[in-house]
Amino acid sequence: MIEGVTITPLQIISIQVGDVMHGMKNDDVGFSGFGEAYFSLINSGAIKGWKRHREMVCNFIVPSGKIKVVVFDDKIGHFDEFILSPQSYYRLTIPPNLWVAFQGIDEAASLLLNIASIRHDPTEVDNKKLDTIRYNWRIIK
Amino acid sequence: MIEGVTITPLQIISIQVGDVMHGMKNDDVGFSGFGEAYFSLINSGAIKGWKRHREMVCNFIVPSGKIKVVVFDDKIGHFDEFILSPQSYYRLTIPPNLWVAFQGIDEAASLLLNIASIRHDPTEVDNKKLDTIRYNWRIIK
Repeated sequence: MIEGVTITPLQIISIQVGDVMHGMKNDDVGFSGFGEAYFSLINSGAIKGWKRHREMVCNFIVPSGKIKVVVFDDKIGHFDEFILSPQSYYRLTIPPNLWVAFQGIDEAASLLLNIASIRHDPTEVDNKKLDTIRYNWRIIK
Repeated sequence: MIEGVTITPLQIISIQVGDVMHGMKNDDVGFSGFGEAYFSLINSGAIKGWKRHREMVCNFIVPSGKIKVVVFDDKIGHFDEFILSPQSYYRLTIPPNLWVAFQGIDEAASLLLNIASIRHDPTEVDNKKLDTIRYNWRIIK
């Protein structure tokens, strides 16, 4: 696994009227300050990426649907893949300077929460078109 | 409206492959530190409450479904009601020492994100059975 990328199992507390699903605490592994929390929806089969943050530490949590996250380290030419969903409920921590893309792989749209260490700042983000990093994305109908 | 309870409109950025939905930034109205973020699911028609935090400031955001949040100030005997959903996309900030309950009012289960100012601590929470505070909950089949 790429150095600094961390996957942390999260607890789901089963309650009859509706579960409680842990997200992140301020003393958790991977927490390096709170800048912003936002949601990113991703439609079935659709892909967002590639994006590289030069400062932000991302913490991805998927409370609904199923998302494949791909992290690419261009210094070593290595990809890491993660499937996040309430069924495999993990927090994925991604340090800066890695390329990230993700795909909705559920039948409906999926929901990703990012608990980010800094607020959104377009000057610290690099973008690349999807086909400029060769990765074999699954086709979902 | 009860003093300190704040409703803040949140932006949804329309993107073809899946929208971005704002949550909270560390310089936003209502932000008073990051302790923990967690999800609470609520089934259709089901109600969670009443609960009173003596220290925690809650920030409720509903990225999926529809939830009615009721805040009760027992010092003045006043109820405030809020409907939160992606269609009426607001962040609801609730200061300590108020009774809070909420009901899932969508056909499917709804998802609430709480960005809480402190970590979960059972010693700062008071609980009351639902029927001990008289409120006319809507019956949802």
